Amino acid sequence: MGIESPRTLKLTLAYDGSAYAGWQRQTNGVSVQQRLEEALARLEGSPVTAAAAGRTDAGVHATGQVASVRLARDMPLDALARAVNAILPPDIRLLDVAEVPDEFHARFAARAKTYQYRLLDGGVVSPFDRSWVWAVPGPLDLEAMRTAARALEGRHDFASFQAAGSAVRDTVRTVLASSVGDRPGPAEEAGVIPRTPACGWLHASTGRLLVYEITGDGFLRHMVRAIVGTLVEIGSGRRPVGWMAEVLAARDRGQAGPTAPAQGLCLVRVDYDPIVLADRG
Amino acid sequence: MGIESPRTLKLTLAYDGSAYAGWQRQTNGVSVQQRLEEALARLEGSPVTAAAAGRTDAGVHATGQVASVRLARDMPLDALARAVNAILPPDIRLLDVAEVPDEFHARFAARAKTYQYRLLDGGVVSPFDRSWVWAVPGPLDLEAMRTAARALEGRHDFASFQAAGSAVRDTVRTVLASSVGDRPGPAEEAGVIPRTPACGWLHASTGRLLVYEITGDGFLRHMVRAIVGTLVEIGSGRRPVGWMAEVLAARDRGQAGPTAPAQGLCLVRVDYDPIVLADRG
Repeated sequence: MGIESPRTLKLTLAYDGSAYAGWQRQTNGVSVQQRLEEALARLEGSPVTAAAAGRTDAGVHATGQVASVRLARDMPLDALARAVNAILPPDIRLLDVAEVPDEFHARFAARAKTYQYRLLDGGVVSPFDRSWVWAVPGPLDLEAMRTAARALEGRHDFASFQAAGSAVRDTVRTVLASSVGDRPGPAEEAGVIPRTPACGWLHASTGRLLVYEITGDGFLRHMVRAIVGTLVEIGSGRRPVGWMAEVLAARDRGQAGPTAPAQGLCLVRVDYDPIVLADRG
Repeated sequence: MGIESPRTLKLTLAYDGSAYAGWQRQTNGVSVQQRLEEALARLEGSPVTAAAAGRTDAGVHATGQVASVRLARDMPLDALARAVNAILPPDIRLLDVAEVPDEFHARFAARAKTYQYRLLDGGVVSPFDRSWVWAVPGPLDLEAMRTAARALEGRHDFASFQAAGSAVRDTVRTVLASSVGDRPGPAEEAGVIPRTPACGWLHASTGRLLVYEITGDGFLRHMVRAIVGTLVEIGSGRRPVGWMAEVLAARDRGQAGPTAPAQGLCLVRVDYDPIVLADRG
């Protein structure tokens, strides 16, 4: 054990957002930030503040959230990760800890974030998938959704996809990639009787799993969910493919489709410039 | 709508067993059977009794449980499935309904049942996987476990793997297949940053997923979990490979490893002789 001088740590987190009021501390409801800060404070022996790359909303999940913290507690990083996970509830897990330069800030240093949204097109939602997918009656026109999704790529004013009443004034963002992928539901692959899917984990949903994935330099409040709500209007045939570009051009939240439910959304990755890891021995 | 004469139906069910006292009705705690019978009784307008192939214990899951019922309610089978799913809680889903001859009984007609048990060898259990896996510190010796698992195949007296205090006297069963498979954890496949696994669903566990799969003509109470507890003793090196055969030969529950936790276990398939579907028009 060395001198207890503070170091800056980059934490990679996964959480099931079902039980939380979102990332950010709230006066009503428990947040992921609160649970993480409480766990770190127990190790540190004093209050700790964690800054996250994405302020996920209530019910939104993460497999690759990134947070930055400053900790004086001097212990090996793998032991620190185990200690934090022993305190955290099982619906929040610390997946990785890395030491970074003191100027690193998880939100301000983020160059891009990637979200995924899972839709089940028809079929029956398995008990094992029910908390991380939005089941849509379908059938959805995948090609129409793909074309519409691509119309969002580039630098645009996304005011039409911002939560009503949001105070953010600069609504221009750059979307680096916007795509929809399909993969057969495991039960569809295997026939009527559900079997183990390729990844080995339990799933039994029938129907077709569609994954919408968007990477951007920043996101407005409810932006991904408003985009997905708009995509489903197009996929279900209630609106034409060209409607996405019209909604985007309108810069008016009243034009977009309904906001898709939080449970289908997941923050999967945050990208940073390569970081030279500080060597503190 | 035709005449309301009763027909016999074969129901295929998936459930997350986390919240249930098991399949069978209990005086303390809610069972899957109770929830299913309640849903069917609401459609039928009178009490319904469901018989299941496997009486899964508290906390045990299913992706392929089979139940048989007699229903007089005359409606198309797909409409019936939708109606039942609209009443059932989302942690129980009816995946398939088929009309079968009146003599069909889900338990007595079953020729074989297949269970899977999921173990995570080392690593961090993702929030999205936490309710259907047993995390073992590891590392586990997969080859030793494979050899030990194979020793159970065939017709044997499984008294060593029966729950203490069980009243069943005939403890001879035939195990048709007993194997352990490994698949890399999604995070291990993709590097440090979790990405979407091959099946498209969310997972973020690190470490190695091991799936133990056993098919047999019948199972004693806690049999699969006692076998898994024994396999983990061998895999972790606390016992030699040959210990499985010794435990089997002893026919004494005191000899086997500890009973593995219920949450890793799942009934995945029930096999029947081909059934000639009754045509009731």
